[in-house]
Amino acid sequence: MNDECTPVMNTGLRGVDVASSKICDVQGKAGKLIYRGYRIEDLAKNASFEEVCCLLLHERLPDDQTLASFDLRLKQKRHIPETLFTMLKHLPRSMTPMDVLQAATPLLIQTDENAGTETLSDVLNSAEHLIAGLSTLIAAWDRLRNDKTPVMPDTSLTHAANFLYMLTGEPPDPEAAAFFDAGLVLHAEHSFNASTFTARQVASTKAHIYAAIAAAIGSLSGPLHGGANVRVMKMLMEIGSPEKIDAYIDNILDSGGLIMGLGHAVYQTDDPRALILAPMSQRMGEITGDTRWYELTKELETKGKQAFKKRKNRDIFCNVDFYSASLFYAMGIPMDLFTPVFALSRVSGWCAHVIEEQYAKAAPKPTLYRPGATYVGDYCGPDECRFVRIEERK
Amino acid sequence: MNDECTPVMNTGLRGVDVASSKICDVQGKAGKLIYRGYRIEDLAKNASFEEVCCLLLHERLPDDQTLASFDLRLKQKRHIPETLFTMLKHLPRSMTPMDVLQAATPLLIQTDENAGTETLSDVLNSAEHLIAGLSTLIAAWDRLRNDKTPVMPDTSLTHAANFLYMLTGEPPDPEAAAFFDAGLVLHAEHSFNASTFTARQVASTKAHIYAAIAAAIGSLSGPLHGGANVRVMKMLMEIGSPEKIDAYIDNILDSGGLIMGLGHAVYQTDDPRALILAPMSQRMGEITGDTRWYELTKELETKGKQAFKKRKNRDIFCNVDFYSASLFYAMGIPMDLFTPVFALSRVSGWCAHVIEEQYAKAAPKPTLYRPGATYVGDYCGPDECRFVRIEERK
Repeated sequence: MNDECTPVMNTGLRGVDVASSKICDVQGKAGKLIYRGYRIEDLAKNASFEEVCCLLLHERLPDDQTLASFDLRLKQKRHIPETLFTMLKHLPRSMTPMDVLQAATPLLIQTDENAGTETLSDVLNSAEHLIAGLSTLIAAWDRLRNDKTPVMPDTSLTHAANFLYMLTGEPPDPEAAAFFDAGLVLHAEHSFNASTFTARQVASTKAHIYAAIAAAIGSLSGPLHGGANVRVMKMLMEIGSPEKIDAYIDNILDSGGLIMGLGHAVYQTDDPRALILAPMSQRMGEITGDTRWYELTKELETKGKQAFKKRKNRDIFCNVDFYSASLFYAMGIPMDLFTPVFALSRVSGWCAHVIEEQYAKAAPKPTLYRPGATYVGDYCGPDECRFVRIEERK
Repeated sequence: MNDECTPVMNTGLRGVDVASSKICDVQGKAGKLIYRGYRIEDLAKNASFEEVCCLLLHERLPDDQTLASFDLRLKQKRHIPETLFTMLKHLPRSMTPMDVLQAATPLLIQTDENAGTETLSDVLNSAEHLIAGLSTLIAAWDRLRNDKTPVMPDTSLTHAANFLYMLTGEPPDPEAAAFFDAGLVLHAEHSFNASTFTARQVASTKAHIYAAIAAAIGSLSGPLHGGANVRVMKMLMEIGSPEKIDAYIDNILDSGGLIMGLGHAVYQTDDPRALILAPMSQRMGEITGDTRWYELTKELETKGKQAFKKRKNRDIFCNVDFYSASLFYAMGIPMDLFTPVFALSRVSGWCAHVIEEQYAKAAPKPTLYRPGATYVGDYCGPDECRFVRIEERK
């Protein structure tokens, strides 16, 4: 390959644009995140998660009638098939929520009579089943593994508030519900990240959207991707108190490690989502009367950035996981649900990408993702191996 | 991007090498397929599927002791958790086998105490669970959806023979079992095809191998990928008899369509696997006393190739799906199990790729697949959209 080219071999395709997309713009240098033309700051402040789902799926912000009917359809789809509860009940309590979610997602297809990739309206309908269904599944599994009865969805509540209600069985604090809603908006979409690329790739085979979303959940479950917010929280707990921050930073940087939640593949500024999450984390701590984790995060940010500047002479910035960890923790969300909550939100973006992959008219005809690989097998030198029957092998 | 570069935008990454790999070499021009140094012709003729699994997972052909202990471990892992049968029993009979397989695969983790990505030997152990478990799952689902009791695995049988036995409840014809074994060898691996790329991509997030394989199953379920052998069989049935071939070809080529099973993204010769499958399909027809589908395929090949040459002035070649359809059909495998049978075999290659992605030492440190996309949103012209609150939208 030409040396002038963007290198693609063994680089994880970093910096290589593989497709055109109308869904999301991540401007790494400017620190801007844009969903279908709209800045994340505007959306997080002014739009509900349902509104953002409409925007992502239907390409435009809805008017109030459009939103009301979308919202109604989503509420109707919160009820998942009874067989899914039966399945969840039979699983070992020790299974991780992400494994359970990946297993249960393909089964949501049961009540979707028109599932398939035949028409755009069918796929949009399936997307609603997925967005609504994942929420019910995650909450139900958390109840069941704790020997509690699942809480049935409450259609008087928003998507965000209903999830918190199904999780705890209590109507959530309105401010907490609003923060959770904003949290869902912030995590909904981020262009071709690993799980979204997985969803698009599966969709490119013309597999149906349930198969694509279940695949994306598998991708998100990886510690390097959706698992990062859990690792931030574990780090905070490991540090434990502010006076231990300096030693922690020294230790981690001495050993060539990274401070979880600092640094991002794309942003060269603070992640715009982190800037929105930080005050929410602070306020959530105030509501619960425990701002310890927020304050620890804040101080770790300051000191971590200083240490990076001093030792490596470069700036490092907060990513989305840095403040979402303490926010979700303050909301009482169990740590191993942080990644499922990420899925609960990102499913909206995944669905938009599956639809774009399968139905985009502006872009050239979508084609199966089928890259190559350079064969470097060296078992028999430059030649093929001579086959020896098993009886003669030694 | 430089015009001299291999184009990647909206091309599905065709022809773009994204990684180096020691697993498989597909030589499109020469029509050669090589697994870890060995030609597919040698392997299909002389090696069992178990031997090929060893080769793919452990990088070398096993000696008889190594193979015997691998085989024993695989046989022990044919028994899947009881909860999986319970789950299958509760599913609607109408669910497709690929959807069921994708849902059930993450649940195989239940009996795998050391699942995770911590050590290579743990992942190799998980790979055995997956290779053995998929077979039991597919057969059990086919029995249950037909109101039959699942047949428990028979450890006196090979992997191939045992699958046919679990499917029908009868000990398979030895020649049929041998052909099925060869069929599994032929489908085991094919470099960075769509589903394998999906598996690697999920693995690159350091997700565990069950999550990666479940994702790959979703990818394989797409009609453009693993679903192609089913479409070949449907086409054969649509044609029905040899005298209708000419009209079928004319009709499909007039309308700009493709003849299923002819043409491949990589091979510029007959697919080496098709050359091996064709006589197996013929002989299987002879065994069952019905060579009709083989003969129809053969004549369609001849006439299809002639028509392509005449109309488009180019050669077209058989791919793997062309003769596997009539072979599997003659074996009595239900058509909608063709793709699951593909998975039953390819899981071995997927596992090898997951392991290479997570543990390869020769290649540079694996990095998360995270490509870019070019944002082409045009909702508000070249500028960002101005956010208007919902009350003021119209």
